[in-house]
Amino acid sequence: MESITLEKLANLIGGTPLGSFDLQLSNLQDSKECDEHSVCYLKDKKFIDTLSSNAGAVITNQELADQLTEQNLIVVDDPYLAYAGASKVFFQKYNNENDSTESVFGKNVIIGQNSVVNSNCQIGNNVVIHDNVSIYSRTKIGDNCIIHSGTVIGSDGFGYAPSTDGWNKIEHLGGVEIGKNVEIGAKSAVDRGALGNTIIEDGVKIDNHVHVAHNSFIGENTAIAGQSGMAGSVKIGKNCQIAGQVGIVGHIEIADNVIVMAKTLVTKSLNEPGVYSGVMPIQKHKESLKFIAKIKNDG
Amino acid sequence: MESITLEKLANLIGGTPLGSFDLQLSNLQDSKECDEHSVCYLKDKKFIDTLSSNAGAVITNQELADQLTEQNLIVVDDPYLAYAGASKVFFQKYNNENDSTESVFGKNVIIGQNSVVNSNCQIGNNVVIHDNVSIYSRTKIGDNCIIHSGTVIGSDGFGYAPSTDGWNKIEHLGGVEIGKNVEIGAKSAVDRGALGNTIIEDGVKIDNHVHVAHNSFIGENTAIAGQSGMAGSVKIGKNCQIAGQVGIVGHIEIADNVIVMAKTLVTKSLNEPGVYSGVMPIQKHKESLKFIAKIKNDG
Amino acid sequence: MESITLEKLANLIGGTPLGSFDLQLSNLQDSKECDEHSVCYLKDKKFIDTLSSNAGAVITNQELADQLTEQNLIVVDDPYLAYAGASKVFFQKYNNENDSTESVFGKNVIIGQNSVVNSNCQIGNNVVIHDNVSIYSRTKIGDNCIIHSGTVIGSDGFGYAPSTDGWNKIEHLGGVEIGKNVEIGAKSAVDRGALGNTIIEDGVKIDNHVHVAHNSFIGENTAIAGQSGMAGSVKIGKNCQIAGQVGIVGHIEIADNVIVMAKTLVTKSLNEPGVYSGVMPIQKHKESLKFIAKIKNDG
Repeated sequence: MESITLEKLANLIGGTPLGSFDLQLSNLQDSKECDEHSVCYLKDKKFIDTLSSNAGAVITNQELADQLTEQNLIVVDDPYLAYAGASKVFFQKYNNENDSTESVFGKNVIIGQNSVVNSNCQIGNNVVIHDNVSIYSRTKIGDNCIIHSGTVIGSDGFGYAPSTDGWNKIEHLGGVEIGKNVEIGAKSAVDRGALGNTIIEDGVKIDNHVHVAHNSFIGENTAIAGQSGMAGSVKIGKNCQIAGQVGIVGHIEIADNVIVMAKTLVTKSLNEPGVYSGVMPIQKHKESLKFIAKIKNDG
Repeated sequence: MESITLEKLANLIGGTPLGSFDLQLSNLQDSKECDEHSVCYLKDKKFIDTLSSNAGAVITNQELADQLTEQNLIVVDDPYLAYAGASKVFFQKYNNENDSTESVFGKNVIIGQNSVVNSNCQIGNNVVIHDNVSIYSRTKIGDNCIIHSGTVIGSDGFGYAPSTDGWNKIEHLGGVEIGKNVEIGAKSAVDRGALGNTIIEDGVKIDNHVHVAHNSFIGENTAIAGQSGMAGSVKIGKNCQIAGQVGIVGHIEIADNVIVMAKTLVTKSLNEPGVYSGVMPIQKHKESLKFIAKIKNDG
Repeated sequence: MESITLEKLANLIGGTPLGSFDLQLSNLQDSKECDEHSVCYLKDKKFIDTLSSNAGAVITNQELADQLTEQNLIVVDDPYLAYAGASKVFFQKYNNENDSTESVFGKNVIIGQNSVVNSNCQIGNNVVIHDNVSIYSRTKIGDNCIIHSGTVIGSDGFGYAPSTDGWNKIEHLGGVEIGKNVEIGAKSAVDRGALGNTIIEDGVKIDNHVHVAHNSFIGENTAIAGQSGMAGSVKIGKNCQIAGQVGIVGHIEIADNVIVMAKTLVTKSLNEPGVYSGVMPIQKHKESLKFIAKIKNDG
């Protein structure tokens, strides 16, 4: 990819460059994985310990900059907002480079009517894509996958940096990687990664109306039932069973062999295998009202 | 629009006209906003106080008619069922008039593959509509909006009047109005208004699989995360954050700057800013079972 | 349909035939309804009592085989996994026979742009199918139905048999039968039956984003609001009202005239009419936290 200098990027996002002004930056990456040709952002000191040791440059605020004295920096008031700005710069570059690339299709691929496969995708052998499916650019689908009608793969994640004039869109530079023998039901949506890919491993089965947010990771042979959804950057282990209408909040991890029962909200990491639940029991409505009154009196 | 006389409308919906039989009625409107050329319906005395003072005519029952002695009326047994009938009369007229009108597109509009924009829509400048999007007639989309794949805008709301032979469809005469800088994720649905429009203000961000029902109003810069949904005629203020899988029952209001946490059901109006929640905690399933037994014993 | 002998089927699914090796089997059916030309599977002794008395053959394990001494059998280690195998055999046959059959359309049918009706469907009179709708093969839709944009009818159910090398797909041999005067909102999904059809009776109204799983049965004039969903083989009676975001677990029955309030999870059969609910009340988040702490202390 065409690169940009530290100084030029700093100018574009309204920051102050510190260090090698002429450093060529070709990518925007996550702070944990940032390589010497890339820039990342750091918005909180709790992430300093996991900052990649050979990051090319870091977008951060003055307070954190004082602790990163040996690093090439772009100092800004609000690193997350500056990251949104940088995402736009690199998005333009990515698009110029990638999106003219034709997609690659394996053998025996069946694509239904009115389905769309955008540029720069890789579709494996024996894949069946039913009707009215939308596949955004930079999606990889492994062998023997089945994608049911109306499903969307590669849509932008729900990411915005707040600012005084509203929400600033974070462009999503990552893609989606789907392993082999994966089936995805009708009307599900798998968002692309913001930085790095959303990953669905081999043998995963996903039902209808499931929402897989940006940068999620779903381990081998995990099954997720209808209308369940997860927020961004969730990591689910192997051989899990997530029942229907389950919600999973962002940035948590679920161990291998976990079963989450229907409609439960997973609000914290689940580090050991087992069966989890958390749902109010159904009752005659007048019984429910008594219970609700009790909670409020106890409150 | 071509108009219809009070008498003719009364005949079509099986009611008794009272007042000026020759009054020309050109619209069916909400009772609060009904103008002198329009007809509305009134099914409950609690709405009498907010009835527009210059409504052309009112479809109502005998009991309420006795209190509306100076009004042109159509008296029926079941005003709501008669409203369903009237909606069909005016729907036909609206369609004849409006649906031959071509849509208007701004500059730099990008429309993906297999997306449909029906008649009489207005699409602003720099709008991006991804693939397989369905936009019904009478939808307005402001500048700089992004609509992701598989989303539907303008579908009919879920409105039926019960009768002895089942559900009677209420035709939806309103449309959808979307402001500037709005982004709507993949596979969401925004229903058109029944009477008047469903309105999404500037800067609103909506994630995947969100259900915006008929006649909802979503205030400026409010963000709504994945798989949340609202019933009809909900009003949400500005700068709210509605997390994922939240439900909002019909006809309630949420103040500005309210945050509703994931999976909460909003059952009443929230009149002051703040953070709200209401979800059972996740536990090992055997712990959940103990809790459920306790509720039932206490009941 | 072209048939297969007991012996050949046993070979294909890795089982041992017992009885008339030359018996011609033309269908795979549910054990309750299996006729003399068909084969079914039995995985648990609790289903022995409801086994059809004239089933052609039964796929089962050694333990159950010992109780079915007068029956033609295919004895296997894991009947459910063998059923998955048999579903693949019959799926191929069904497809060869059925899927070259053209669909039949009634009078005054309107089909929107980019909507797909696959082979061997029957669409009644006055049906309106909006844009970007996907209808799989072997779907019947009765007169006067309305299907809104982006809805999918006939997608495969979420059914897999677990095995040591992951999930084995169960091919869905059934279809979908929709009665008259049914309306289905935008972005809903109705899965086809595994064995036998998914059935939606006359006058049913279904809102947006609803998930109707395989082999569900929805009785006359029942209304189901947005984002509700059910797991497989649920039977809902007539004139029920299922509010939004309700979940219904698999294999249960709901009586006629039941109302289930919003967001409730139905975990057991509801045998009498009435209003049911089960949802945590919304509170200021700090109040919710107190309640959660209390549950955990009591646990």
